[in-house]
Amino acid sequence: MPIAVFDSGVGGLTVLRALAQHFPREDFLYLGDTARLPYGNKSPVTIRQYVEQNIRFLLGRRVKAIVVACNSASSVLDPSVKAPVPIYNVITPGARLAVTQSNTGKIGVIATRTTVAQQAYVRAIAAVNPNAQVVQQACPLLVPLVEEGWVDDPLTNLVIHRYLNPLKEAGIDTLIMGCTHYPVLKEPMSRVMGKGVVLVDSGEAIAQQIQTDMSAKQLLANPLGQGRLDLLSTDLAENFRLMAERILHPLSAASFNHVDI
Amino acid sequence: MPIAVFDSGVGGLTVLRALAQHFPREDFLYLGDTARLPYGNKSPVTIRQYVEQNIRFLLGRRVKAIVVACNSASSVLDPSVKAPVPIYNVITPGARLAVTQSNTGKIGVIATRTTVAQQAYVRAIAAVNPNAQVVQQACPLLVPLVEEGWVDDPLTNLVIHRYLNPLKEAGIDTLIMGCTHYPVLKEPMSRVMGKGVVLVDSGEAIAQQIQTDMSAKQLLANPLGQGRLDLLSTDLAENFRLMAERILHPLSAASFNHVDI
Repeated sequence: MPIAVFDSGVGGLTVLRALAQHFPREDFLYLGDTARLPYGNKSPVTIRQYVEQNIRFLLGRRVKAIVVACNSASSVLDPSVKAPVPIYNVITPGARLAVTQSNTGKIGVIATRTTVAQQAYVRAIAAVNPNAQVVQQACPLLVPLVEEGWVDDPLTNLVIHRYLNPLKEAGIDTLIMGCTHYPVLKEPMSRVMGKGVVLVDSGEAIAQQIQTDMSAKQLLANPLGQGRLDLLSTDLAENFRLMAERILHPLSAASFNHVDI
Repeated sequence: MPIAVFDSGVGGLTVLRALAQHFPREDFLYLGDTARLPYGNKSPVTIRQYVEQNIRFLLGRRVKAIVVACNSASSVLDPSVKAPVPIYNVITPGARLAVTQSNTGKIGVIATRTTVAQQAYVRAIAAVNPNAQVVQQACPLLVPLVEEGWVDDPLTNLVIHRYLNPLKEAGIDTLIMGCTHYPVLKEPMSRVMGKGVVLVDSGEAIAQQIQTDMSAKQLLANPLGQGRLDLLSTDLAENFRLMAERILHPLSAASFNHVDI
């Protein structure tokens, strides 16, 4: 059975790529809820409704685990909800990895407006290290810049500078990229933050978590899998396929299909 | 009975403001489909489904006309659809006004990706003046910049320069702001285009159309109206109210309510 990964759009593909590279024998089913994207500027009530519909849909597809590869969705997820398969959010592993990596305990978080307002990382970090200091910054323009394809672009660098400067001045030594689009901009962000600051990528954090669970047999590995990636989206837009090919590179999808949810 | 105005989010409020200032005795009911915004990067099939749901909802609220104050929604609207009240789109009046204003027949259109791909303005302008030359430019970043509130901002000016320069070089004398968010950026756009270029605002164009229809009694005026503005949104986000207050200024809304559609 495949592992399901879902996001509001293409951002979660950075998580899918990290997972697929880490577990080359696993099959993955990706769902991009592109008909209702983005989630990051919508209210928790509305996002929760979308997330529950997506989870129900994926459970119907017989998957062995569901990765909520969207920080805004993860930030409104009720961790006490019982489901017949493990449900992974991106926030807990990202917070844990950041605490491990930080020497000073000064951790920065960049995310969408909703994730910041929900204080999801602040709580997740405090649960691991109550003495950590967290500085948050909402960066609503980074997602549209990535979607526009202005990735290696002086204008995008200006926007990154504006958002990251306050974090740099606050003296953080670890920065959580708290939105799955952001790893696409990891290089220019690293340049702005300088060598002393470690950037934490949710995809890598969640891969470590799944590795731990597989070793403990809480999640069964798939020795017969073919590393197949099947992509679904709730909208038809051609842009999804183009962006997916660009983000997944050097991996590629076995199929693209449209679904109504 | 009020006139309904709807958009995917706050952009249509520029149209509402123009209409409310033009018809101070009319009551208006505004619907922002913020739970599913934006429309401009989604496929025609998905947008059409949302538009039909919104129209059905507004007809249930007993309105005397419906203004589709969203270019992406207007661009996928089937003009042959029969409805019990007049349905106005923003594209036809904008195209007509542009043809009237242009001396050279060289008309520029800036819009979302979907509106550009649908060629809605190209067809609407050709229907009025088959000899007009139309130059289109998709500007996906302008909406998020307005939503972020970076309106009077050097960074936004750089983005505007990048999008508008090709139109300036093409020598247009009239520019249609083909997205209802754009009038918020009218001033910096005028500075880039220079004095020789007229900027066409859909809100003003649609107000002229409605004025004509009222004079011809195709739409009844409301001499007893109080100029009341009631606002509905499909999401709860606080940001909607803040943006609405900013865009409607100096007018203000009598009520804000949430609805499920």
